[in-house]
Amino acid sequence: MSTIYPVILCGGSGTRLWPLSRKSYPKQFVPLIGETSLLQQCADRLRGPAGAPYAEPMILTNEAFRFVVPEQLMAVGVNPGPILIEPEGRNTAPAVLAAALHLSSSDPDATMLVAASDHVIPDTPAFHVAVAEGVRTITDRGDLVTFGITPDRPETGYGYLKLRQVPDASGVSVPLDRFVEKPDMDSAKAMVAEGSYLWNSGIFLFAVRDILAAFNQYAPDLVEPVQKAVENAQSDLGFLRLDPDAWRTAQDISIDYAVMEKADNLSVVPYAAGWSDVGSWSAVQELSNPDADGVATSGEVTAIDCHNVLVRSESPAQEVVAMGLENVIAVAMPDAVLVASMDRAQDVKQAVSALKAKGAKQAESLPVDHRPWGWFESLIIGDRFQVKRIHVHPGASLSLQSHHHRSEHWIVVEGTAEVTIDDNVQLVSENQSVYIPLGAKHRMVNPGKVPMVLIEVQTGTYLGEDDIIRYQDVYARD
Amino acid sequence: MSTIYPVILCGGSGTRLWPLSRKSYPKQFVPLIGETSLLQQCADRLRGPAGAPYAEPMILTNEAFRFVVPEQLMAVGVNPGPILIEPEGRNTAPAVLAAALHLSSSDPDATMLVAASDHVIPDTPAFHVAVAEGVRTITDRGDLVTFGITPDRPETGYGYLKLRQVPDASGVSVPLDRFVEKPDMDSAKAMVAEGSYLWNSGIFLFAVRDILAAFNQYAPDLVEPVQKAVENAQSDLGFLRLDPDAWRTAQDISIDYAVMEKADNLSVVPYAAGWSDVGSWSAVQELSNPDADGVATSGEVTAIDCHNVLVRSESPAQEVVAMGLENVIAVAMPDAVLVASMDRAQDVKQAVSALKAKGAKQAESLPVDHRPWGWFESLIIGDRFQVKRIHVHPGASLSLQSHHHRSEHWIVVEGTAEVTIDDNVQLVSENQSVYIPLGAKHRMVNPGKVPMVLIEVQTGTYLGEDDIIRYQDVYARD
Repeated sequence: MSTIYPVILCGGSGTRLWPLSRKSYPKQFVPLIGETSLLQQCADRLRGPAGAPYAEPMILTNEAFRFVVPEQLMAVGVNPGPILIEPEGRNTAPAVLAAALHLSSSDPDATMLVAASDHVIPDTPAFHVAVAEGVRTITDRGDLVTFGITPDRPETGYGYLKLRQVPDASGVSVPLDRFVEKPDMDSAKAMVAEGSYLWNSGIFLFAVRDILAAFNQYAPDLVEPVQKAVENAQSDLGFLRLDPDAWRTAQDISIDYAVMEKADNLSVVPYAAGWSDVGSWSAVQELSNPDADGVATSGEVTAIDCHNVLVRSESPAQEVVAMGLENVIAVAMPDAVLVASMDRAQDVKQAVSALKAKGAKQAESLPVDHRPWGWFESLIIGDRFQVKRIHVHPGASLSLQSHHHRSEHWIVVEGTAEVTIDDNVQLVSENQSVYIPLGAKHRMVNPGKVPMVLIEVQTGTYLGEDDIIRYQDVYARD
Repeated sequence: MSTIYPVILCGGSGTRLWPLSRKSYPKQFVPLIGETSLLQQCADRLRGPAGAPYAEPMILTNEAFRFVVPEQLMAVGVNPGPILIEPEGRNTAPAVLAAALHLSSSDPDATMLVAASDHVIPDTPAFHVAVAEGVRTITDRGDLVTFGITPDRPETGYGYLKLRQVPDASGVSVPLDRFVEKPDMDSAKAMVAEGSYLWNSGIFLFAVRDILAAFNQYAPDLVEPVQKAVENAQSDLGFLRLDPDAWRTAQDISIDYAVMEKADNLSVVPYAAGWSDVGSWSAVQELSNPDADGVATSGEVTAIDCHNVLVRSESPAQEVVAMGLENVIAVAMPDAVLVASMDRAQDVKQAVSALKAKGAKQAESLPVDHRPWGWFESLIIGDRFQVKRIHVHPGASLSLQSHHHRSEHWIVVEGTAEVTIDDNVQLVSENQSVYIPLGAKHRMVNPGKVPMVLIEVQTGTYLGEDDIIRYQDVYARD
């Protein structure tokens, strides 16, 4: 059996789960169901079963998420494989092709398992069995394999896969007849009743050799730009940054449209053990083990006399009380709260657009700002001062910088900082402070083995993040 | 015309408007309707019309609110009259009697206007006209005067005043026939239809001489303990602290039960210009100018396709989105959120009890803690650190204190502090910091004419408010 290379598509930036999911930190990074994020659950699942030849996962993501991805993977003990940075989102066909080309250069016999980073698949062993059936299908028939979800309702939000026959309960793959676009309700009901239609999950298993052949046959125009983007990719701090000029000339198209709907050697592994793309808060409610009254809660929530609700408090410092509610979603964060009818779960992005139109930063950003060296959070902004909590990973370093309009007081509250101020370098430990005068060149480094946390008190007439002059930066930022 | 002495009852600690109103900072102190608090609106109303002989208001409140009351009054340019501290709440009869006895000692001819601090009365000129009618009634008939609200609905939550005749539209007072307890809905409908029943507002106008006579006649057992509590009251930092031993022997009883229902010389001034005791969030919705769809919002709220809702964001840093809601109340604060059916507005205190039972501090306390010298707010609490914003009024001083378990870093971000650390006294101005080692005796004073704001970063193994040893305190606290 050839090695299985997981390929995780991690570029999504959906707003349908606002306020928890925001453009700056979308749903794959958030603990939506359970303690870990969807990406972490995905990476954990793609370790494969004990003894199976699964490689470290390759990740395709974008510039903004390049530091969060390895941070989250390492936090659950998964070493990331290659991290390919897409200069901009071009949909799934260029992404899968880039992954296939990159794999092919090191292992032409590779098998690639393509998965989205933001799906919920509760039964990991069942998923591994399905992957093994996919491998068998490739070996026996040389097909391109897609995974089809046995529908439990006439969903109109998904595309369907029409199989050549009704699959039996054993999970054995069935050749594909054709793709079916998102249906209307009557068609969806008919398909679910008929039995040979499964949901198109967007999970694929390919012999790299076969999918490259399919791209060459059905989407030859994609191959040249993507090949150039991969060949000219820049290796940068462990990331592989696809060549932006070549990448931008590749068509923005899904792999279904570009290849799968045209190919005639497709098989579907049926999957009935539970799957969701978590496309709305009502999907989250269903996945959150609601009680007999349909009440699903998470965090510090007190729900009294409610029916069919999802009530979440996303901060341990925020108590949420729900009383007498019916068919309501309430998701509370200290900086943003959504309260919506369950029937309007599909329309949350409309609310985000309204917020964006009024200029609210909560439309797209979280109070916590993730950076290559860790993260910071603004605790309070006054007229001429701001207080931040700054969390620096072990071994990480902020840039050497100065500010025109503010001074800073740093008080270390956890760990140890190595602080540079102009020509002076000093160690600052817990319960010690330093002062950074306006204009001084300064840098903080965490030289230790544990996270370093400091409180920064800024004073000055202008406190914007853009009052920064960077002299040196290990992360190569301007 | 004798001087009118406003007497504001400011001891309430209701939970029906949680989370905005909490036991530690109840609704009279909160800007519920408009920019100022209900107490401030009350005090402003009780300045009286131009040229009328209204004295500075006397306030009856409790220990916990004694510093907030004058702070709020002075913020709207009202000098507080005597502030009487009730050692514990004993309902309205002892409070009114104490006020009458205190007034009588300095002005036996006084007229007292008793009002709750937490009512909404939108039409101040109309209220002044009604008070003038009350004065006329006292002069002409020597009656005790109460104010009756013309009902606009068959409310079952109020007691009613049965007048001897249906009042005309002129607002002329009518002798009272009798008090009616909170009715059932059928009785309420019948009374409203009949026309001679008004709501009992709890606002009174008395010649001090007459109300004292009434207490002596109808509630003689109250007079001795309350008289003793007033005579033995301790003057303390400008407050008059009623004698606790005497006060506790006074019966806990309302003035209606103790006196008004027994007296035979009562008149009612009818009042039809709008009044609310703001007893629930649904009352707030009605008072908040809802649009044609019944949508009332305040703060940073985006409401889409809602009907009959109240949606409030109580922090400029918190965006609230409401979508597709019907008959819902949503009140959001960074530390607590209420989402409830409008029909359950009366049951909010049940939710507060549930929160209290689970030990949530949000049941009774706000993040901001008011103190005699100003206030503070915890910005973040970590394992071994805490960050606070501390706001000190001009001229105010914290106690000289020390801590066993924590050190403190103080960074002044607005104004100037005079800081004592052991034997050293120094001025610390904006953008300067000082360090208070564990165990050091320290104090901060605001010697300036503008508020002083500092950021305090505490580090230590125990950060509770009770790790404090006070050596000297201008506010006489232990």
